[in-house]
Amino acid sequence: MPNFLVDLQPIGRRIEVQPGTDLLTAAQNAGVDLVAACGGVGICGTCKLRLAAGQLTPLTSSEEEQLRPEEITRGYRLACQAAPLSDVRLEIPPESLPAAQRIQIEGRESALALDPAVVALDVALSAPRLEDLRADLARVNDALAAAGRGPLQASLALLDQLSAHLRREGWTARLALRVPALPVHLVEGDSQLAAVLPAGSRLLGLAVDMGSTKLAMYLVDLESGFTLARGGVMNPQISYGEDVVSRIAFANKSADNRRLLQTRLVETINQAVGGFCAQVGASAEQIVDAVIVGNTAMHHFFCGLPVEQLGAAPYVPAVSQPLDVRAEELGLQLAPGAWVHLPANIAGYVGGDHTAVLLATQGYAADQTLVVVDIGTNTEISAVHAGRIVTCSTASGPAFEGAHIRDGMRAAPGAIERVRIEQGRVHVATIANQPAVGICGSGILTAVAEMLAAGIIDPRGSLRRDAPGVRVNNGKAEFVLVPPEGSGHGYEVVVTRSDVNEIQLAKGAIRAGINILLQEMGLRPEDVDAWIIAGAFGTYLDLRSAQRVGMFPAAPLERFHQVGNAAGVGAKEMLLSRARRVQARQLAERVGYIELTAYPDFTRHFVEAMYFGES
Amino acid sequence: MPNFLVDLQPIGRRIEVQPGTDLLTAAQNAGVDLVAACGGVGICGTCKLRLAAGQLTPLTSSEEEQLRPEEITRGYRLACQAAPLSDVRLEIPPESLPAAQRIQIEGRESALALDPAVVALDVALSAPRLEDLRADLARVNDALAAAGRGPLQASLALLDQLSAHLRREGWTARLALRVPALPVHLVEGDSQLAAVLPAGSRLLGLAVDMGSTKLAMYLVDLESGFTLARGGVMNPQISYGEDVVSRIAFANKSADNRRLLQTRLVETINQAVGGFCAQVGASAEQIVDAVIVGNTAMHHFFCGLPVEQLGAAPYVPAVSQPLDVRAEELGLQLAPGAWVHLPANIAGYVGGDHTAVLLATQGYAADQTLVVVDIGTNTEISAVHAGRIVTCSTASGPAFEGAHIRDGMRAAPGAIERVRIEQGRVHVATIANQPAVGICGSGILTAVAEMLAAGIIDPRGSLRRDAPGVRVNNGKAEFVLVPPEGSGHGYEVVVTRSDVNEIQLAKGAIRAGINILLQEMGLRPEDVDAWIIAGAFGTYLDLRSAQRVGMFPAAPLERFHQVGNAAGVGAKEMLLSRARRVQARQLAERVGYIELTAYPDFTRHFVEAMYFGES
Repeated sequence: MPNFLVDLQPIGRRIEVQPGTDLLTAAQNAGVDLVAACGGVGICGTCKLRLAAGQLTPLTSSEEEQLRPEEITRGYRLACQAAPLSDVRLEIPPESLPAAQRIQIEGRESALALDPAVVALDVALSAPRLEDLRADLARVNDALAAAGRGPLQASLALLDQLSAHLRREGWTARLALRVPALPVHLVEGDSQLAAVLPAGSRLLGLAVDMGSTKLAMYLVDLESGFTLARGGVMNPQISYGEDVVSRIAFANKSADNRRLLQTRLVETINQAVGGFCAQVGASAEQIVDAVIVGNTAMHHFFCGLPVEQLGAAPYVPAVSQPLDVRAEELGLQLAPGAWVHLPANIAGYVGGDHTAVLLATQGYAADQTLVVVDIGTNTEISAVHAGRIVTCSTASGPAFEGAHIRDGMRAAPGAIERVRIEQGRVHVATIANQPAVGICGSGILTAVAEMLAAGIIDPRGSLRRDAPGVRVNNGKAEFVLVPPEGSGHGYEVVVTRSDVNEIQLAKGAIRAGINILLQEMGLRPEDVDAWIIAGAFGTYLDLRSAQRVGMFPAAPLERFHQVGNAAGVGAKEMLLSRARRVQARQLAERVGYIELTAYPDFTRHFVEAMYFGES
Repeated sequence: MPNFLVDLQPIGRRIEVQPGTDLLTAAQNAGVDLVAACGGVGICGTCKLRLAAGQLTPLTSSEEEQLRPEEITRGYRLACQAAPLSDVRLEIPPESLPAAQRIQIEGRESALALDPAVVALDVALSAPRLEDLRADLARVNDALAAAGRGPLQASLALLDQLSAHLRREGWTARLALRVPALPVHLVEGDSQLAAVLPAGSRLLGLAVDMGSTKLAMYLVDLESGFTLARGGVMNPQISYGEDVVSRIAFANKSADNRRLLQTRLVETINQAVGGFCAQVGASAEQIVDAVIVGNTAMHHFFCGLPVEQLGAAPYVPAVSQPLDVRAEELGLQLAPGAWVHLPANIAGYVGGDHTAVLLATQGYAADQTLVVVDIGTNTEISAVHAGRIVTCSTASGPAFEGAHIRDGMRAAPGAIERVRIEQGRVHVATIANQPAVGICGSGILTAVAEMLAAGIIDPRGSLRRDAPGVRVNNGKAEFVLVPPEGSGHGYEVVVTRSDVNEIQLAKGAIRAGINILLQEMGLRPEDVDAWIIAGAFGTYLDLRSAQRVGMFPAAPLERFHQVGNAAGVGAKEMLLSRARRVQARQLAERVGYIELTAYPDFTRHFVEAMYFGES
């Protein structure tokens, strides 16, 4: 059976697809990033495409569930559920492309100019003889000079490899050369050797966004800019503490503990890299560069830096400036001369991942006013207006990850992710359409919003004890979302007063941060041109519910952009462009950081923001 | 008993000396380098001083033996044998100072300007507080900026140490900063952190000359330039091969073997460094910089670089350019951020040690014509004339180290080091005046010269079978230097025809090298203003004997300078001055290397030079 031709519009890429391959996999193999928050298992509805011509496999039940009837009528499909049955033309709606590519398509910025920090140079040398006694390295340096490049700097191990390689491979090699950063750290022309590879080898780069819970990883072809492989793995540090605060406490107990957090993380990355390489038929020696981002605590854990001072006021980082570290020093098994770039941290609780998020929003026109919100246990918020950036971090807690919620759970099959209350009747949608076993962050947010609309809770979060579905248990009111008999296996799922309170605290913290930044900038919510909601939960969350509980201001919905893992996108941009690294550094330097706990009006703002309701 | 004041002229230094301390030790403790080829055991006669005023301990038998009667009359003493009995004034003759200091005294050059590659900066910082949330590193960088220096570059391990140190030591530290090389490798102002030390710590440097047989090591105070400790240790690689050729063969057998040569060498240096540090009350963390020189094979062994290509024609180095390597990468236990500078190799058999020797001769006026000879198993020879340098290496063999000689031995107690034949009677002098057990390099050289003068051997090296003392053993003539009954313990020491032949080959190789370089330069021996004879054997050897056998041309003796370990002196100069590193690089680049085995007339030159006799 011949391959089908798939024409992706409006980005204008044609790809060949084997029969039976779903469109998401096919697009990703071709380096086209589609938003796929759930990783392609059909539960998030983010990888929407519209069929313009040709035939696809029939609609699946996941699609019937995730897509609205009018979307289905208009030809929308989920890329992860559909495979071509003929040559097809597909249209990718803007929201299905992650920030960088979307920005590009929307014409807000010219495409990213490929200018990676490591480039390939093929050399073919003459062998030594009595009339030409140049040292091996001098021989290579002369070839570099002929190519307009300066002499090599390399570790001894790599010089050793170079001499052996040249003799084995008939004095030819593909050299991976690290070119100076901008602004130059090395004199013009000095070339650092990242790897000695056989002629024709592809040069690869690794981008990692280290979340406290998950690591998102991308294997990128440095010459084409295509993402060859991607994946998420659990952060192994979870075994030593659910959140960074408890891990800091663990690290502070002993140097061994601190080392353990570092080595476990690096081992996990090495293992995942091995899997990626096997997947694309490459070797880890071809990974000649890496950009790794994370919150400040993850950054310090990863670098093995001290974290005592992150665990106690006034919470200062050991290092905030951008770092370039040898992969070998970190224990990362990449090319022997590979370096890892870690962009600047902004504060003790605003890390290089937020720098990367800010970088990924650079496609928006300079005169636009933006609010960027990256929701997690700590939520980082930036307001960008008239060339100024102010940023704060707010302790939103783990409620949106399903923690501290009585029946809370992570976004996994069986988790309630949407709730609708119509005429006193509760409707729930679960991930993977499994019987409900608990409720995840986006579920509890819609539940609270619906309970508020239905008058089950009041603006202060108290449950109306006489409302239908509310019962009193040990003197405390709680709302039954799914009764035992409705769940399919006898578990009930309820929302307690205390759950509601967790959501109040979380949304209050976020809204207080937003309000303070707007006040600092002298802005009203309606002055904001674009609300950029980043991160996994930010991609899943129901915007209307978030507005109804008052987490976000009641601005027009079309101004909100759920951009997915913008930190990962920013990391990839820095991998592909030295100019982006300079931009990131400049962005971080421009940020005016506001320490909320020291902000004069913080308590008032926070208490006000705890009230439920649109505003 | 009070200390005595010792006034050293013409260098104009006054030092305090405890009663009972010999003058050599006292001078060395004060950082005054005296030539002491034997290490201060009274057998080489190189540490001569003249007493100008005051009283010293009585003449020892070593002095009676080493000094000529007229020297004793004029007040000459050996520094290692004499201790003050009052305040004294002493004159140091030029030949008792190693090259660098001698040059300085002779007014050929201004004193070495202290400008080491690592300098101290004391910082006192304010602690973080809510109004000052700068990261630790940002805090240090701001202090550096205030001192006119650029931001720190450091390894993660060192950044970790920095944060911990600042908190422990009340936010004060002495930073050891590596300043950019000249010409700059880093942008103006970038400061690499070599160590974080308590306030007031001395910054130390290590210079090592790695000979195939011995390692000469110097611990230097970088702020004063004084040598605080010195010593020689055996090269542990001797267990794996007497000379570098056999070690190359050993290394080529397996990667493990190559690694073994590297690690054994580094362990030995680490151990010696530990001893030095204990001796001067310092810690290895204070050793913030190092310069290490050696022949090309030793350089490659030390760096763990491949040596296959050094063991087979056309004998090219893997690396000839100067290297800066992290001490940690080599396994050297110095300051955590210390680097090791290895000056340029010139060719496969002319290493960075010869570059250092050439550097140490830079005090001679630029218009002087020099011949520099560093004698070893391989002898490196340079001719310097009218701004041009030509260099060759010649395989002089191990005869001068006592190897391949029937009764040969290293220069150790009981070795014959001087021979005189008067009216058919043989007189020998042994090291430490012990009964003769063998003959060392300088001994065999004088023996052959005397045998030639006495007509026992002819210019072709044949023994006259009818000469007194010559006997025939298994059909081969040999000359009895010490009969069993004369040696004190029944061993006899003889010189065989084959021994004479070894000396012929050795001196012939050296002389052929000298002749070819002079021919290349269009010079006659009398055009040479100074003959610089470097190295341990070069310091011991009897110049007249060397001329009589024809190893050196019959130039006026006062033009010969036996400068001791000039490679060590050059290494120390590079440790104390960045400008000297640049000079060394430029010198190495200027060298025109002549590969003797490919030189058209080499065989004729060599055969001619094999004949004995002055010329």
